[in-house]
Amino acid sequence: MSDKKQPILVVKLGGAEGLDIEGACSDLAALAQPPVRMVVVHGGSADATALGEALGHPPRMLTSPSGFVWRHTDRAALEIFTMAVNGKRNTLLVERLQAHGVNALGLSGLDGRLMIASHKTAVQSVEGGKRRVIRDDFTGRVERVNDGLLSLLLEADYLPVIAPLALSTDGFAVNVDADRAAAKVASALEADTLVLLTAAPGLLRAFPDEDTLIADLPRGRLDAAMDFAQGRMKKKILGAREALAGGVRRVIIADGRRPRPISDALAGMGTTIQ
Amino acid sequence: MSDKKQPILVVKLGGAEGLDIEGACSDLAALAQPPVRMVVVHGGSADATALGEALGHPPRMLTSPSGFVWRHTDRAALEIFTMAVNGKRNTLLVERLQAHGVNALGLSGLDGRLMIASHKTAVQSVEGGKRRVIRDDFTGRVERVNDGLLSLLLEADYLPVIAPLALSTDGFAVNVDADRAAAKVASALEADTLVLLTAAPGLLRAFPDEDTLIADLPRGRLDAAMDFAQGRMKKKILGAREALAGGVRRVIIADGRRPRPISDALAGMGTTIQ
Repeated sequence: MSDKKQPILVVKLGGAEGLDIEGACSDLAALAQPPVRMVVVHGGSADATALGEALGHPPRMLTSPSGFVWRHTDRAALEIFTMAVNGKRNTLLVERLQAHGVNALGLSGLDGRLMIASHKTAVQSVEGGKRRVIRDDFTGRVERVNDGLLSLLLEADYLPVIAPLALSTDGFAVNVDADRAAAKVASALEADTLVLLTAAPGLLRAFPDEDTLIADLPRGRLDAAMDFAQGRMKKKILGAREALAGGVRRVIIADGRRPRPISDALAGMGTTIQ
Repeated sequence: MSDKKQPILVVKLGGAEGLDIEGACSDLAALAQPPVRMVVVHGGSADATALGEALGHPPRMLTSPSGFVWRHTDRAALEIFTMAVNGKRNTLLVERLQAHGVNALGLSGLDGRLMIASHKTAVQSVEGGKRRVIRDDFTGRVERVNDGLLSLLLEADYLPVIAPLALSTDGFAVNVDADRAAAKVASALEADTLVLLTAAPGLLRAFPDEDTLIADLPRGRLDAAMDFAQGRMKKKILGAREALAGGVRRVIIADGRRPRPISDALAGMGTTIQ
């Protein structure tokens, strides 16, 4: 049994290309000696895109009236997502962690109602200047985390590995943003630290110039960071804000391309927000 | 919390076509009122075949020198199996059970070392009269079940839903036979009853004549049954023998095409072996 008082570390492993997954797994194994308690949340959108293309169902992007772009997840795309992300990516991560001696246990947010999400049954999309109503989008936003289930597993020395799917309040599987899901999980567990790994050294003041890394970002400057964060980094900043508001002590956005990405993040590399 | 003394029911849902999955899920929901403790093990070979064909990797069958035919699971086929079976089939079963109010929790045998399998690194196959050695077959046989993990989940009122993948003793994901995995799970939990659902009324003396159903098979006649059992039914007979030898009180091979397949099996329809 782990000591319940030990701090909890939540790590988000990105789904994008370029991350050193083997490095992350061996690093997790080095760090995962009890009583350190850890939870991994992973992405997988690149896997889902590749599988969708192989099956003749490439991703179709939607644009909201306010200009936000997201992937249309109809039922076929959702099933592809379950295969690529909860099937292949999650299972192979667990396989690799187990090979390193870590007692990993894969879950999606549907399992034991681990993550309950809100789900809009109608969303607007703008195409060719016209608004359309989309009624078959299975994308959700995590609202509640079953921290009791995670605590049960952590206390029995399992390392939960979570795929970014949730159960919607209307009873469907929905895909969710993995960075923000990791933030919700970290908040629910009152984690000490949330590490968000990405294919960059951290938050860059002038993307993509890696010499403009911001090593420390005071919590009060998160709003300003939203202005210069690019693309997916905006989701990480939103996740960081949610995690800190939820009681997490610090969030580190760090380089997942390094061989010891989590140890390096904890040692101060990357962008620390607290 | 469930009463630890309540009998445990293990149900195997077949992966073949023709089963009434919606019927099985609503029946499980009706039966799953605590303190009944249940575990589901599912198949999915039909899903894996369909996905493999869609991805240009159709199943390739191997034949052992003794005439046993099985599916060659190379690494690509194993990854397809994880997608189709642990990704889609498992996730959608959990989704459907959750929609019925059952707190299902999906696992594969890799998760928390739930099922550890032996794995032959070289097997013989006969092709065109010649013997070949196959070194990349990721098929295993369940040797150990982590009953502590299942008990932890059952006592917290989760219903485990298990995909037929295991962690091999040499550290790889392997696919395993779902009927025999269900038998191992039932034995490890000292289950009262194992129900094996199939696309037939039960064990038939003269397959495929459904009027030749054997309603009761004494345990001592299992060897004789191996002589007239056809195809996949042989695996169920092997599973039944292993479960009874492992301490399970009774095994019921029953019709998964019916709308209330598990209730009907428990009421005496199908083939009861004890």
